[in-house]
Amino acid sequence: MRLSVAFRHAHLSHASVRRSRAGVKVLNSENRRISDNSAVSYPWVREASSTSGTSETVTSFKSHPRKNDGPDIVQRSREELKAIRETNPGLKPTLAIIQAGEDDCLLEVNKKMAGKIGLNVMQICLPRQCTEEEVIEEILRLNEDSRVYGIFLHLPQSFLSKSVRNAIKPQKDVDGVSDLNVGRVVLGDQRDGFASPVAGAVLEMLARHDAPLIGKMAVLVGVEGPLKATLQFLLQNNGMMVQTCQWSSKHMQKQIMDLDVVILLETDHKGLPPTWLRPGVAVINLGSALMEVFTEMFVAVVICQHVVRSNRRWIQEQQYQPWRLRPLKLQPLSPVPSDIEISRAQTPKPISQLAQEVGLLPEELEAYGNTKAKVHLSLLNRLQHQPNGKYVLVAGITPTPLGEGKSTVTIGLVQALSAHLKLNSFACLRQPSQGPTFGVKGGAAGGGYAQVIPMEEFNLHLTGDIHAITAANNLVAAAIDARILHEATQSDKALYSRLVPSVNGVRCFSPIQMARLQRLGINKSDPSDLTPEEVRAFVRLDLDPEKVTWQRVIDTNDRFLRKITVGQANTEKGHARQTQFDIAVASEIMAILALTDGLADMRARLGRMVVGSSRNGQPITADDLGVTGALAVLMKDAIKPTLMQTLEGTPVFVHAGPFANIAHGNSSVLADKLALKLVGEEGFVVTEAGFGADIGMEKFFNIKCRTSGLKPDVVVLVATVRALKMHGGGPNVTAGVPLPKEYINENLQLVTDGCSNLKKHIQIAHLFGVPVVVALNAFKTDTQAEIDLVCRIAEASGASAAVQCHHWSRGGRGSVELAQAVKEVASQKNHFQFLYNLQDSIVEKIRTIAQKVYGADDIELSPEAQAKIDYYNQQGFGALPICMAKTHLSLSHMPEKKGVPTGFILPIRDIRASIGAGFIYPLVGTMSTMPGLPTRPCFYDIDLDPVTEEIKGLF
Amino acid sequence: MRLSVAFRHAHLSHASVRRSRAGVKVLNSENRRISDNSAVSYPWVREASSTSGTSETVTSFKSHPRKNDGPDIVQRSREELKAIRETNPGLKPTLAIIQAGEDDCLLEVNKKMAGKIGLNVMQICLPRQCTEEEVIEEILRLNEDSRVYGIFLHLPQSFLSKSVRNAIKPQKDVDGVSDLNVGRVVLGDQRDGFASPVAGAVLEMLARHDAPLIGKMAVLVGVEGPLKATLQFLLQNNGMMVQTCQWSSKHMQKQIMDLDVVILLETDHKGLPPTWLRPGVAVINLGSALMEVFTEMFVAVVICQHVVRSNRRWIQEQQYQPWRLRPLKLQPLSPVPSDIEISRAQTPKPISQLAQEVGLLPEELEAYGNTKAKVHLSLLNRLQHQPNGKYVLVAGITPTPLGEGKSTVTIGLVQALSAHLKLNSFACLRQPSQGPTFGVKGGAAGGGYAQVIPMEEFNLHLTGDIHAITAANNLVAAAIDARILHEATQSDKALYSRLVPSVNGVRCFSPIQMARLQRLGINKSDPSDLTPEEVRAFVRLDLDPEKVTWQRVIDTNDRFLRKITVGQANTEKGHARQTQFDIAVASEIMAILALTDGLADMRARLGRMVVGSSRNGQPITADDLGVTGALAVLMKDAIKPTLMQTLEGTPVFVHAGPFANIAHGNSSVLADKLALKLVGEEGFVVTEAGFGADIGMEKFFNIKCRTSGLKPDVVVLVATVRALKMHGGGPNVTAGVPLPKEYINENLQLVTDGCSNLKKHIQIAHLFGVPVVVALNAFKTDTQAEIDLVCRIAEASGASAAVQCHHWSRGGRGSVELAQAVKEVASQKNHFQFLYNLQDSIVEKIRTIAQKVYGADDIELSPEAQAKIDYYNQQGFGALPICMAKTHLSLSHMPEKKGVPTGFILPIRDIRASIGAGFIYPLVGTMSTMPGLPTRPCFYDIDLDPVTEEIKGLF
Repeated sequence: MRLSVAFRHAHLSHASVRRSRAGVKVLNSENRRISDNSAVSYPWVREASSTSGTSETVTSFKSHPRKNDGPDIVQRSREELKAIRETNPGLKPTLAIIQAGEDDCLLEVNKKMAGKIGLNVMQICLPRQCTEEEVIEEILRLNEDSRVYGIFLHLPQSFLSKSVRNAIKPQKDVDGVSDLNVGRVVLGDQRDGFASPVAGAVLEMLARHDAPLIGKMAVLVGVEGPLKATLQFLLQNNGMMVQTCQWSSKHMQKQIMDLDVVILLETDHKGLPPTWLRPGVAVINLGSALMEVFTEMFVAVVICQHVVRSNRRWIQEQQYQPWRLRPLKLQPLSPVPSDIEISRAQTPKPISQLAQEVGLLPEELEAYGNTKAKVHLSLLNRLQHQPNGKYVLVAGITPTPLGEGKSTVTIGLVQALSAHLKLNSFACLRQPSQGPTFGVKGGAAGGGYAQVIPMEEFNLHLTGDIHAITAANNLVAAAIDARILHEATQSDKALYSRLVPSVNGVRCFSPIQMARLQRLGINKSDPSDLTPEEVRAFVRLDLDPEKVTWQRVIDTNDRFLRKITVGQANTEKGHARQTQFDIAVASEIMAILALTDGLADMRARLGRMVVGSSRNGQPITADDLGVTGALAVLMKDAIKPTLMQTLEGTPVFVHAGPFANIAHGNSSVLADKLALKLVGEEGFVVTEAGFGADIGMEKFFNIKCRTSGLKPDVVVLVATVRALKMHGGGPNVTAGVPLPKEYINENLQLVTDGCSNLKKHIQIAHLFGVPVVVALNAFKTDTQAEIDLVCRIAEASGASAAVQCHHWSRGGRGSVELAQAVKEVASQKNHFQFLYNLQDSIVEKIRTIAQKVYGADDIELSPEAQAKIDYYNQQGFGALPICMAKTHLSLSHMPEKKGVPTGFILPIRDIRASIGAGFIYPLVGTMSTMPGLPTRPCFYDIDLDPVTEEIKGLF
Repeated sequence: MRLSVAFRHAHLSHASVRRSRAGVKVLNSENRRISDNSAVSYPWVREASSTSGTSETVTSFKSHPRKNDGPDIVQRSREELKAIRETNPGLKPTLAIIQAGEDDCLLEVNKKMAGKIGLNVMQICLPRQCTEEEVIEEILRLNEDSRVYGIFLHLPQSFLSKSVRNAIKPQKDVDGVSDLNVGRVVLGDQRDGFASPVAGAVLEMLARHDAPLIGKMAVLVGVEGPLKATLQFLLQNNGMMVQTCQWSSKHMQKQIMDLDVVILLETDHKGLPPTWLRPGVAVINLGSALMEVFTEMFVAVVICQHVVRSNRRWIQEQQYQPWRLRPLKLQPLSPVPSDIEISRAQTPKPISQLAQEVGLLPEELEAYGNTKAKVHLSLLNRLQHQPNGKYVLVAGITPTPLGEGKSTVTIGLVQALSAHLKLNSFACLRQPSQGPTFGVKGGAAGGGYAQVIPMEEFNLHLTGDIHAITAANNLVAAAIDARILHEATQSDKALYSRLVPSVNGVRCFSPIQMARLQRLGINKSDPSDLTPEEVRAFVRLDLDPEKVTWQRVIDTNDRFLRKITVGQANTEKGHARQTQFDIAVASEIMAILALTDGLADMRARLGRMVVGSSRNGQPITADDLGVTGALAVLMKDAIKPTLMQTLEGTPVFVHAGPFANIAHGNSSVLADKLALKLVGEEGFVVTEAGFGADIGMEKFFNIKCRTSGLKPDVVVLVATVRALKMHGGGPNVTAGVPLPKEYINENLQLVTDGCSNLKKHIQIAHLFGVPVVVALNAFKTDTQAEIDLVCRIAEASGASAAVQCHHWSRGGRGSVELAQAVKEVASQKNHFQFLYNLQDSIVEKIRTIAQKVYGADDIELSPEAQAKIDYYNQQGFGALPICMAKTHLSLSHMPEKKGVPTGFILPIRDIRASIGAGFIYPLVGTMSTMPGLPTRPCFYDIDLDPVTEEIKGLF
């Protein structure tokens, strides 16, 4: 520490400092009093007589700190650090020191002090002649080094340019040299800023004197930069009057003459002529070796204290942060404009701002432009001790083909909770398939004044997750057909020599090949040890082309790919076979993404995916194809949920979107888990299940909650007067055709009759022990009498509450009543339970769902279905949960049966399995997995203005 | 302005300020002299007698500014602003004022002053009772408002919390209230900081007095926050001694007694007792209405001046910025580790840092995580007057099947130019197809110590451009087949009523349908006006299923999709047809992306794409399908090039990657154009052409440069001893098989003979008038004699220079010699010219290329080719450039003919057209557009560590 003061703050070379050491001198006051009533007396320095008051003749002195003060700070810092490290055992907080030229003893002092306190020290020694750029490069590196909590530049003044000083991250600038830290300090911000430790040392020296400082006059001679500004501020704050003066000043003598305190930093050839100093003046020479005795320790202690403070701030940042959400104002227009117009009229907050508002750290965010960002899963680890918020599921009654607005209810509800009730809340939505955006469906970002914005970013590409799934899915497909071809056209030996080639004369199995050998029961690791039979077992998956269950996928509504023949080129040598493309979201990889809880689990599930069976009936997996690792690599970014915002600036996670027809149709477990941590114990996570409650909600409970271990607190059941009228016997509702008059005019009888469906769905939720709030999504044609009737019947049917909501036309304000009901019901205890045990037989599990949820008398298995059950039992897949593939348009398997059908037997046509995702899916009827384009797809109206870059025609 | 000072800096309510107005008093010095030799005399205030020295009794005064001073600043600011607006006519720089409660006359003064100078004023009036959050919300909005160059908070002190002050972007903080601005000001940074205008006004008042300020003593009473800190600093900087004091201080009287200047801000009930002020003291009351006469104008002028300065800074930022590149240090190991190991060992700079270093503005960047970012095309407009840098093309001799390292040469060259010669340079690379990454090829990010990092980000997904192309391409395909089906199954009338439906009783054509009507020569806009014939012409594209030329694409090596039958499901009613999938990069949309110069052009090209022909031979376009706008929407982000970096931290654009087999195989025009602006006039853009110079370079000149209008300065021709030996008669080189000994041991004869191929490629470049630097990509088996021989022959054959390079093993340092040669040759004049005129007939153009570039005697057209030529001529496509689809393994069409084949006739098997991309492509032999997977694809070695998230096995 010896030279640090002089070195960093004066225009001195190393050598010159060593040459010009003067003492800190305090000359007793004589004819001038620096306090009102007493002579100046600085007990911590030796007093010199007025006649010896020159820098040459001053005698050495020793500081006398108030006893235990230094050790006190050390002690406090050590204990604080110890406490920090006890709760964060991996932490090794480090002070980094950048110096140029060889070491002086600074490092020793700092090391000693750091050692006492328990800090590490990292020393960066640059050559004496290094450039500014080199210093900045080191600083930038240390800024990014997570071990380093403080950066101290032990460099000549000439290096401390504006660029260098401000290259240091303010939170690591423990020496207080950056513009921002100086600004904070002079504005009195003790919480965020770091004040120069040298300035602190001067103050400490003066403060140890009993005489009050108020009204004393001080001059800073030759002190520049951050130290000057900080000293000025601190001295003035203690009531002193301060003047500054450069060595070159012609007025110096005049300035110094009458003053009480002179703080000077001597330069090379300059010093104060002794005659300038009147007796009694206190002189503090910052370039003085004699000052070291005091400052050496003091400065080192303060630097270390700052490092500990920086570390503590970091720890605090790591902890759960209360939200500082700034909702966006919404001024709904009437009539309600188109979705894209509403979306475009609102300027979203920068996504980094939203992230900060909800307590995400910058390093947990990967921005994708300015309105979307992926969030790192490391958050789960950071907030592992944070209790989860309330978990709300939005489900619906059996819908019309037009849909009853579960997405808008979900978005309206979080807008109301966050922006109006000021309760933390997060919506977790599914990423929509891009195909239907250009077909008939349009966007899926909500609608009206309950939307995710920008809606075009939500509906297109997003952050590429579905594209990644497509790439991964189709790599498996390409690997299957290529493998069948290669096996069909090569001998065992040729296959073996290609699969396990000699590289630089060495043959070895790759890790994924070792895994296959183990599954085959071959415990050998040297390729030359395998018997011909073992080689044959290893190289031949012997996939039966007729029993390949893996399909290709594409994120386009391409009906011509529903059944195709592949492999018709000559190069494929007659191995043509019939297969199909599904829409990308129907991929098992999407179902895995929605159910996984992390990278390791996702990788394992991807490897377990069964793609078909061998000619002798063994299931063949992705791992057998050797493709597991590549799939994990393709999916490494898709596993991170995407953060967006609603029209009112409240947070939304968009993640996964498994096809509800054949998968579970729920948003991702990971998004829910992240959101439950972020909202805090009193907050709400609102997540959505596809289709009616008989399908989406049942799978949410029995599959998703079982996988995640999360317990739902309340179900919001969305109903519309329109759907209830349909269930009450109203005419057919068809997309693209005007609604019959029954749906336009008041009809209380149809509503009353249709409420049977609502009642049934409430009962289904109660089967699982979860309370229900009915959200009546109000349309402008609904009459008050109809609305009141529904709410009355719903509450009579066991709903904890039933309220109308107007989010579509009014935004969050239109859903405040719903939000209040949800808040209240969520605070009640519930008794969540699964509907079946995994240990039940496959048939029992299917029957339980059919009878208890759908209201069937029994189930009926086709021979294929029975054979599959036997096969799955034999393969050990019997204990998986059941994911029913049933129409969403009726509680039964017959879409035309509305209301609450009874007296039917549920036919199970076939049974399939998604072993990677982890469920068995019985097919009840035919499920389309590839939508088509109508005669006039909505792309006719979609366009891009090449100048404004605005999108038109999305809805 | 009247109340601004009091209002913003005192704990006063509006009303109380009005109540407590005191005068600025300057009392002449009597028994105390504040300058050495003269009595204090402030000519700009009226002097009051010492006996009347109380705030109550002081008489009013009028300021007397030095003549023309105020107007001078106004004049200067007005002229500066005028000059700015002359070069930036669209600019309307605005000062935004946020106030709470009703207006006082501040706005008037500011409006008047702003008007004089030429600024706009925006006034935000919040309710008197607004919250801190509301103020911050407005500030954040104004921060993002590009019209606003200054934000002024005209608010009570109680609102000016730390959060509010620091919410303002420092560059818009014209009132100097943010921590950063205060820090800058007290550290004397006049360039970047804004100092409080009120503090400036006080200084101005004092400075107008002739007496020197040095040594005078001042006290600030009741002044807080930024104004206090700024005043302290400014007063001290003028040699005064400054003390501060709060109204609550017990020592106030003592503090004030002896001073020369008292600057005070009165609060509600407080004022200075007149007896405390000794006669002669100068009192400046910042809360005084009487002070306004001076400050009103002064502060308004300074605020406006600051807005102009903020505007000027913005203008300066908009201009070309010299680079401040911080290369990453590279310490190559020997032996050279694997590519992924090298990539992982280097920590890339944050992409936002690199962007800043090369002069990109934050708003021009869309980060995709921390290592990739898309760059906005608005850059082209911003730097439109900036001269382009030098334009360097890297091409190669006829390669072996292993490739001769054009990508590594390109990357090594920019590493050498930027990191070692300190010359600005940019590499422009093609995005690799993801399919081959998992097949045999591995990554395409360069190799060894010449790589783009992180290489896994480069090789996978990147920023989703290829996925976007896939989506757009396949939407066209789905639209084609769906349209064929719909036309086949519906009457004209049914089609018409669906294509032009009645919406709320109104039928109208969409804009894209109007475009089709115009092409059909039907000048009607009312759907009911069309005759049945016109309806038929409109609704029926009448696509001939046999003549659909549009293929589906997928970014997977899926050989089984090379020939397929689609439409075999019952729902497609027997409309099955044979077609194929190509690899995604072979899509015409990729070729368009590579050639387009902006959104409008891309949209037009997408619409022009011909997808097949009607039964009567008319070309049918994407626009006829109604899909143009949707394609543009899908491609809106893909059009922005992606910024990444090399191992040495130098910038790289990755953009587009058209399949060189059937398209032009060059990186994008837009990336080149952006880079040419960014590097500056003395900088270098190094771009790469696919395959040998006979293909990639010829297309670069004749197609890409013709489209872009850019002129190349030098060609770097990559050669290897290995390829030259092959051309000299060496044995076959095959991928995956060890090299024959001729390639391992020195063989000067083979090299000499093989140089014929090199010589021919040099001559091809000279046909276009561009000088050549030969880059011999050295392998460790090359002997010095072989290397010297090649260089000697190359220079004798007309190369301007020929040098060896060792980037693979040594990074940029290994390519310094090449960089120097390129620098030198690029500075010479050249005479770039095209090889043919577009007006030449298709046959002539093909013949010119065949004879002059390939060395063929003539060409021979198949009947199909001849028929296509006739068809294209008839359709008006005859003036397009030619994009030959020829093997890259020989100068001829026969891959086995190495060296310089002669005496052959080039057979043209067929001719196709990419009308959207804008070229005709003759097929010379069969081109594969879908690679396959080998028996052991490289995915066997690829894996992801679930804990570290590190990728293994990519190369």
